[in-house]
Amino acid sequence: MKNTFGIALSITLFGESHGTAIGAVLDGIAPGIKIDEEYIEEKLAQRKPKGKISTKRREPDKSEIVSGVFNGYTTGSPLCIVIKNQDTKSKDYEEVARLARPSHADFTAFCKYEGFEDYRGGGHFSGRITAALVASGAILMKALENKGIYIGTHIKNCHGVCDQNFDKYRDDIEALNSLEFPVLNQDAAQKMKDEILKAASEGDSVGGILETAVIGVPAGVGEPWFDTFEGMLSHGIFSVPAVKGIEFGAGFDMAYMKGSEANDAMRYKDGEIVTETNNNGGINGGISNGMPIIFRTAIKPTPSIFKSQQTIDFKNKENATLNLKGRHDPAIIHRARAVVDAITAFTVADLLTARFGTDFLKE
Amino acid sequence: MKNTFGIALSITLFGESHGTAIGAVLDGIAPGIKIDEEYIEEKLAQRKPKGKISTKRREPDKSEIVSGVFNGYTTGSPLCIVIKNQDTKSKDYEEVARLARPSHADFTAFCKYEGFEDYRGGGHFSGRITAALVASGAILMKALENKGIYIGTHIKNCHGVCDQNFDKYRDDIEALNSLEFPVLNQDAAQKMKDEILKAASEGDSVGGILETAVIGVPAGVGEPWFDTFEGMLSHGIFSVPAVKGIEFGAGFDMAYMKGSEANDAMRYKDGEIVTETNNNGGINGGISNGMPIIFRTAIKPTPSIFKSQQTIDFKNKENATLNLKGRHDPAIIHRARAVVDAITAFTVADLLTARFGTDFLKE
Amino acid sequence: MKNTFGIALSITLFGESHGTAIGAVLDGIAPGIKIDEEYIEEKLAQRKPKGKISTKRREPDKSEIVSGVFNGYTTGSPLCIVIKNQDTKSKDYEEVARLARPSHADFTAFCKYEGFEDYRGGGHFSGRITAALVASGAILMKALENKGIYIGTHIKNCHGVCDQNFDKYRDDIEALNSLEFPVLNQDAAQKMKDEILKAASEGDSVGGILETAVIGVPAGVGEPWFDTFEGMLSHGIFSVPAVKGIEFGAGFDMAYMKGSEANDAMRYKDGEIVTETNNNGGINGGISNGMPIIFRTAIKPTPSIFKSQQTIDFKNKENATLNLKGRHDPAIIHRARAVVDAITAFTVADLLTARFGTDFLKE
Amino acid sequence: MKNTFGIALSITLFGESHGTAIGAVLDGIAPGIKIDEEYIEEKLAQRKPKGKISTKRREPDKSEIVSGVFNGYTTGSPLCIVIKNQDTKSKDYEEVARLARPSHADFTAFCKYEGFEDYRGGGHFSGRITAALVASGAILMKALENKGIYIGTHIKNCHGVCDQNFDKYRDDIEALNSLEFPVLNQDAAQKMKDEILKAASEGDSVGGILETAVIGVPAGVGEPWFDTFEGMLSHGIFSVPAVKGIEFGAGFDMAYMKGSEANDAMRYKDGEIVTETNNNGGINGGISNGMPIIFRTAIKPTPSIFKSQQTIDFKNKENATLNLKGRHDPAIIHRARAVVDAITAFTVADLLTARFGTDFLKE
Repeated sequence: MKNTFGIALSITLFGESHGTAIGAVLDGIAPGIKIDEEYIEEKLAQRKPKGKISTKRREPDKSEIVSGVFNGYTTGSPLCIVIKNQDTKSKDYEEVARLARPSHADFTAFCKYEGFEDYRGGGHFSGRITAALVASGAILMKALENKGIYIGTHIKNCHGVCDQNFDKYRDDIEALNSLEFPVLNQDAAQKMKDEILKAASEGDSVGGILETAVIGVPAGVGEPWFDTFEGMLSHGIFSVPAVKGIEFGAGFDMAYMKGSEANDAMRYKDGEIVTETNNNGGINGGISNGMPIIFRTAIKPTPSIFKSQQTIDFKNKENATLNLKGRHDPAIIHRARAVVDAITAFTVADLLTARFGTDFLKE
Repeated sequence: MKNTFGIALSITLFGESHGTAIGAVLDGIAPGIKIDEEYIEEKLAQRKPKGKISTKRREPDKSEIVSGVFNGYTTGSPLCIVIKNQDTKSKDYEEVARLARPSHADFTAFCKYEGFEDYRGGGHFSGRITAALVASGAILMKALENKGIYIGTHIKNCHGVCDQNFDKYRDDIEALNSLEFPVLNQDAAQKMKDEILKAASEGDSVGGILETAVIGVPAGVGEPWFDTFEGMLSHGIFSVPAVKGIEFGAGFDMAYMKGSEANDAMRYKDGEIVTETNNNGGINGGISNGMPIIFRTAIKPTPSIFKSQQTIDFKNKENATLNLKGRHDPAIIHRARAVVDAITAFTVADLLTARFGTDFLKE
Repeated sequence: MKNTFGIALSITLFGESHGTAIGAVLDGIAPGIKIDEEYIEEKLAQRKPKGKISTKRREPDKSEIVSGVFNGYTTGSPLCIVIKNQDTKSKDYEEVARLARPSHADFTAFCKYEGFEDYRGGGHFSGRITAALVASGAILMKALENKGIYIGTHIKNCHGVCDQNFDKYRDDIEALNSLEFPVLNQDAAQKMKDEILKAASEGDSVGGILETAVIGVPAGVGEPWFDTFEGMLSHGIFSVPAVKGIEFGAGFDMAYMKGSEANDAMRYKDGEIVTETNNNGGINGGISNGMPIIFRTAIKPTPSIFKSQQTIDFKNKENATLNLKGRHDPAIIHRARAVVDAITAFTVADLLTARFGTDFLKE
Repeated sequence: MKNTFGIALSITLFGESHGTAIGAVLDGIAPGIKIDEEYIEEKLAQRKPKGKISTKRREPDKSEIVSGVFNGYTTGSPLCIVIKNQDTKSKDYEEVARLARPSHADFTAFCKYEGFEDYRGGGHFSGRITAALVASGAILMKALENKGIYIGTHIKNCHGVCDQNFDKYRDDIEALNSLEFPVLNQDAAQKMKDEILKAASEGDSVGGILETAVIGVPAGVGEPWFDTFEGMLSHGIFSVPAVKGIEFGAGFDMAYMKGSEANDAMRYKDGEIVTETNNNGGINGGISNGMPIIFRTAIKPTPSIFKSQQTIDFKNKENATLNLKGRHDPAIIHRARAVVDAITAFTVADLLTARFGTDFLKE
């Protein structure tokens, strides 16, 4: 039971929100991948809190690669990224040592670690840890792009406000990756922001649904049992804090479809094998079929709200009322997309490396 | 990239639909678990096709434990279950060698295995393989029951017909485990069967949503990153053929909730720590919180339908029309619940073994 | 802690000496490897007890591949080999339930499995389980040969009688693989057999040292830390029952050498990079260097002897004397070589698959 | 194929000799283990080059724990140790970019990483990386001591000079752990140092044999196949740079013994089960038997020598002569013992955690 993930590649996360540093070790990576530091910064920027719709904690998130890179290229040995913690206000969290924040991991961390957990700011459970994940994922995302594999995520639904569907995948992905607030339809984007600000003004928060597309994955990757493409992606994606669901292709709507509607008819088109619909989200029998891999991720509303909440004081073993102070996001969905992208990049890179060998991602 | 799953326990599946045998190896299991063969048969019976709403293929599914059991108890060494194939009609599937059945794994298997796959009846991708999974899972499910941990699954939605919610978990689970068609509300059950028969009469099929409850899991099990409780369960559950989505607690409905609605208030009640709602489905920060673990699984309509379908002939590289014959299920959702139960039992047993050591499940 | 081994490939062993069957599941194997049943039988024959120098237990060892092979080729899905147990005389072993056979696993099995172990004939610890390993390894050994990689093992030392060194690797390996008693120098072979028969006549047993060569492995395979070529091979090789040591190249003799003697000078020779000596046994920094991989394995004398032995009765918790009856080998070194070959083939195939992808071994 | 090791625990190493930093991530560790920084420094000091018998490179080896520790105790989340590199003289190694140092990993690294490796000072292959391993191992070694499990290593043989055998394990281990040059007999120690200095004066180097004892491990730990106690230990130990062999108990001497000599007679003694001899080194059938676990490790002479050597220029593809300059150890065996101790501590802690659960090592 470990904080490590992957088959041929592996990623290990370490660090606590208010400790010395957070970081990640990426192992099994191909040698010869060029490190594009600007690209990494771009991805980290997508995860950073920004403007009124985010927490006021400002993290410089200066990532440093301390191993595995030489002369600007990956060496093939473990690549460790370290991000030092700086803007920490530990005193804000003193109360947490006693009061469990509802829907947070305070109580479960206490049960698991038996009182030895670093409770400050969520400790090892903090969303902050994902910065290291995003930096690592950026390296792989860039390497995948060089192989013609592109990943993009938009906010499909934010507290009921829906974005349009993917239309032209390649263009849409490019557009999304240049947006701070990743929504295809800009009217929808504005309405979503309004929802977030409204929740913020009430001391409340909202969630939503992210939709991710991966294009360019060759057919034939994944395993029929257990290490299915869906199984591997979902295993990783549930590590994005606040994710409570994942669905591929038509997903839960399948419950309302008949086989004749749900089945994706297959055709030769311009010498390529395609499906007319993509209700299976690019995966059959756990294995990629060459169509875009499409999945949606349910993000719960940020649990840190300023409204008064009923909870327990698990040190004094009594009921209590929690009135949170500090700096909190009224929504994290726009920041979470960078983490979803990163885990997706990792998982796709992992499955491709397992299939084609350690050199696959080499330029 | 393997057909093996698990951390402290592991399960490996082998076999093809029309080969000599299918089976599973369960490793890392505690010594001293009593084997209840009747219980295994019961679980296998839940997976078996039955009545008008299932395929006419009748599999005796006689499971044989060939290792790891001595004098009626697990020895602690690998337990291998073998189920011989008997009622196979290979000629029915000859056409499949050429024509990809839409939404099946024929084409992806061909890409992955490059023409060497056993295409008869879905080969290694066949739902038949799950019989071995169910038999293995039954051993663990029984062992978990002896530790006060119960698992039950109902059809929450079958082609739009909905079952009532779980009410009294312990009783509902017991009721469900005694039902062939696992629905809590018997009116809903009848309407669901009508939907299935209607689809069957049209040569079509339906899907639905399964909802699973696990009660009795102690708080503090799971890992914050990657080997989260959700991540491990989802990794396994996506191996149930036809699953296209999974959500925990309120899941995708979270997109429409505010933090103040979604957060589960905590209380001491009769000396126990409980949450007033269970929108997080018993898991916070990837770790069990002691509440029932609740998740729902989207099952797509059975892809094998008798309606004419557009597809490709991937041997001759041309478009084609597929008119399926043979024996096929108009719905598998009622059979799939046994597989979901089995994987759930395995995953819960695995996480508990990783946490508490190899003897945890010993009687 | 599992009965499974491997990174990209995996092998899982199951079965007990006197149970229904033993077997192995090989997963992650390339599709399109031709199954040569005669070759598998040949390898199984090398492991079989034979003549006066072996136990009188005669096992037909009829292996059956029950999955993962279609039309004579591997499909790429898990390949399960089952060998049914037949010639079992369980009553011979009744005493073992009480008396720990010295240097056997009776007592440690009792501690680990807490009395639930199948103690008959060594149960899951029995050397018999290796038949499944040998059959699995034979498939990979043949596939490696098709890639120009050859493996051969000789008895370097049997109770002090030494064989000559490898001379011409390719020829020597071919010769060894055709010999029942794998010794290069036939005089030495005879003297070794004499030692074994002498020990047998005394109710005693002997051990020895096996030396294995692997040629044709390309340079650059293995990992600097942990999954070193030596680490992976040794991890597997210590599963050969009775192995108590392993050394690569000059091994323990290094203790008597200076750097200037031990270092392998490098040279270009006919366009190839070679080393003048091979004291490192073909591995530097955990990674293959293209030279023959050479290692030696210490095999302890068979612990089952007919001489009276002091031991404990761990049921009655008292000291006791053991006088073994039944059928036992005065030496297993000549049989063990087939197991060493099999694990070597597995490990080499595994490391190559991890490096070059799942198709590497495809014909 | 990864730089990660372990079943229930895991350790991941990262870093290059002349990069920014080296380090290790320890995951799966129990919460509540007290961090004894002095003890860690002590172990690091044992690994440090010292006096005339070592390289003149002086590394401050200031280790910093950047995660997984809170208020002086492990939290149970991943513990990352970082050691910054300081005293690096990269220009000394420029020649290595062209000339392969015999018996080093320069050529194999080039083959594996295809020219992208950080060749300075051995890069990721450098013995320097073991500092992080030693620091991590020290935490586990201390935790094991609190459970009554002690580990100690002496130089059994240095270029032919032999130390006496272990006599009183507990006392000998304590003595060894307080010695910089770990030899039980001080006359032998002096003779070994003389050998090392003599080799140094010749521009040459020597190797030797380390012998390690682990006492206090309960019977019943390990697995019969693959994850045997020997297999796991050897897998780890071959990561100690320069190790070319490992043997347990009587090891290779078994080749000269009969069963009646090699078998360890068992006895009840003062209520405990013991063996009269310990030729099996505390392990039967891959599982600990409660006796001291004894193994020996062959360490090759340090490959960096000042004598002129024949080698290849693998950039210019021609034969060349190498005359090394810089700072090199005439022997590393006395430093290697700290690494052997660390990996032993890790492996023992790992197997115990897998068996008894994640809390086992908690104070």
